[in-house]
Amino acid sequence: MKIVLDAMGGDHAPQEIVAGAVDYARQTGHTTVLSGDEAAVRAELAKYDITGLDLPIVHAADNIQMDEKPALACRSKKENSMLVGLRIVRNGEADAFCTMGHTGGALTAGHMIYRRIRGVHRAVLTTPFPSSAGPIILGDIGANPDCRPEWLAQWGQMLSIYAQARLGIEAPRVALLSNGEEEGKGNELTRAAEPLLKSTLGDHFIGVVEPKEMVNGAANVVVTDGFTGNVVIKLSEAVAGYLFRVLREEITARPVAKIGAALARPAFRSAAAKLDDREYGAALLLGLNGILTVGHGRSKRDRVFFALRSTALLVESDMLNKIKKGVAEITVTGSAEAETVTETESVAMLN
Amino acid sequence: MKIVLDAMGGDHAPQEIVAGAVDYARQTGHTTVLSGDEAAVRAELAKYDITGLDLPIVHAADNIQMDEKPALACRSKKENSMLVGLRIVRNGEADAFCTMGHTGGALTAGHMIYRRIRGVHRAVLTTPFPSSAGPIILGDIGANPDCRPEWLAQWGQMLSIYAQARLGIEAPRVALLSNGEEEGKGNELTRAAEPLLKSTLGDHFIGVVEPKEMVNGAANVVVTDGFTGNVVIKLSEAVAGYLFRVLREEITARPVAKIGAALARPAFRSAAAKLDDREYGAALLLGLNGILTVGHGRSKRDRVFFALRSTALLVESDMLNKIKKGVAEITVTGSAEAETVTETESVAMLN
Repeated sequence: MKIVLDAMGGDHAPQEIVAGAVDYARQTGHTTVLSGDEAAVRAELAKYDITGLDLPIVHAADNIQMDEKPALACRSKKENSMLVGLRIVRNGEADAFCTMGHTGGALTAGHMIYRRIRGVHRAVLTTPFPSSAGPIILGDIGANPDCRPEWLAQWGQMLSIYAQARLGIEAPRVALLSNGEEEGKGNELTRAAEPLLKSTLGDHFIGVVEPKEMVNGAANVVVTDGFTGNVVIKLSEAVAGYLFRVLREEITARPVAKIGAALARPAFRSAAAKLDDREYGAALLLGLNGILTVGHGRSKRDRVFFALRSTALLVESDMLNKIKKGVAEITVTGSAEAETVTETESVAMLN
Repeated sequence: MKIVLDAMGGDHAPQEIVAGAVDYARQTGHTTVLSGDEAAVRAELAKYDITGLDLPIVHAADNIQMDEKPALACRSKKENSMLVGLRIVRNGEADAFCTMGHTGGALTAGHMIYRRIRGVHRAVLTTPFPSSAGPIILGDIGANPDCRPEWLAQWGQMLSIYAQARLGIEAPRVALLSNGEEEGKGNELTRAAEPLLKSTLGDHFIGVVEPKEMVNGAANVVVTDGFTGNVVIKLSEAVAGYLFRVLREEITARPVAKIGAALARPAFRSAAAKLDDREYGAALLLGLNGILTVGHGRSKRDRVFFALRSTALLVESDMLNKIKKGVAEITVTGSAEAETVTETESVAMLN
């Protein structure tokens, strides 16, 4: 197993990225290639005892900054750490690429180097999402803010394959996120996508779900457009943060409540562990000719570790070939037409 | 003050609706007209001592069921409790109409009876929404799942007027909800709406906000399309419910934690009070020639009370004339064109 990690991507690069790579290499024995500024990465590695660990550095002269326009950055900085790292995988010298950097930059670089799998309308960005019934698979979470109905139908199929490998569910129940189940609810996109999902997935498609049912785990896979999906993950995080902040403020303002909260700490800890999404690892851009995962920009070493672990899981489960096979089957059965948009247009869309 | 209340609308009608009306009439002395089945409403009223309270009944032979298609129900049931109640307000015999019933039905009935204010593209459904900095005004929350950019720009103006009256903020900061602030983020709608909001609102428009900033109260008014807005309010409720459920489960599973939680109860109570949105009252459909508010379908008597109180506040603040004046000003300055879609088409859209 050989994963290339973008050593320069994320708010805490390269320090925490390299630290996470060291932890990961030590625990798994996997080769972890660090793409980035050689001197900077070497200086970080020097902080650890890496005897016996395989942590090669591949020098990248440049890197994409968080405030840069992705397409421009990828065009003007041909030797940025993402493009350099992705080329190693494309050339067959590694199994997957993982970054905590600029999501838009990763999508653009991924499309440029890997290109889309033949027959895939659009690559979909997906992540496990917590629910009462355990994690579900949610996508698109931000790669495609404006969608066509047939993309959503194909993602239903692709995300099912992902859920099988990732969650171990043999026949995932797929749903379409909407604002209500009554006839006439939803928007133009969901109303057009619903019959397509039904015809693509048959009985595995359970129809539309409202946010409440999604959170209750009514489906294993929830499909939505990239604008709504991105709002969903960001809002969930914001609401949870807000609630815990209010609770903490009220508790710390009261001495007796503080004692009570100390007694209840194991319960709080256990609840926090249940709600913790760190172990879910990195989001996956699904539909390209290569594995590309994107972790949280704020990742510290523990999240970097989990991002790498989730990436390795995709390699081990042969996700890429499963998706290719699945897409080929859909294309053959004619429920999705081959996409005519060129790679250049696709990359332009990401800007 | 004279408010018409739909006695037949909501999951707990007519029992809880009538109970809330009695509480409200007792506390305010306002006339509360109950539209609905006369015998059923009379039977509920008989349960209370209503001496000195003004609670007239206006008989409505029919009512809209939750599983009905709104337009069809309004066309085939001309004497349903919503249409009957709204007519009383339109005829100048009452100040406002309030229902806990079918939202789609209320929107359709409202458009049919009140009609849109001249110059208003589309009526916007809006509600106060909790944030760290106190309630903000969010709209659209479900009346218009598919929007044009110019509607959002006009709503920015209309919701500002509402925020002034409702939250007492002289110059509300308005923002557009998006999935990110970087250039190229957002979808086609938000990218087209952003410059229009800027030109309509000038410096009062602070640009796009992500969910996190919205929850942190960065803006006083947040504008979005009705699909996203509806997902936002439903997801927030679902996430909050999920978190508290997990916390409660973990606490009750541990005897010591249970004691601790008992000691911390005042803090929990205070946190719950801060997060409680009951007092925000009913959502308002803004942009029609009359006040129409829609409370939560699950409302019991306390929420019915707050729905009525929030409705009275709109009447007292002369909201209708303020909106009419505001819209006339925008229309005159030419930043929004008069809408050509007919009322029939508008109602059809709601189905």
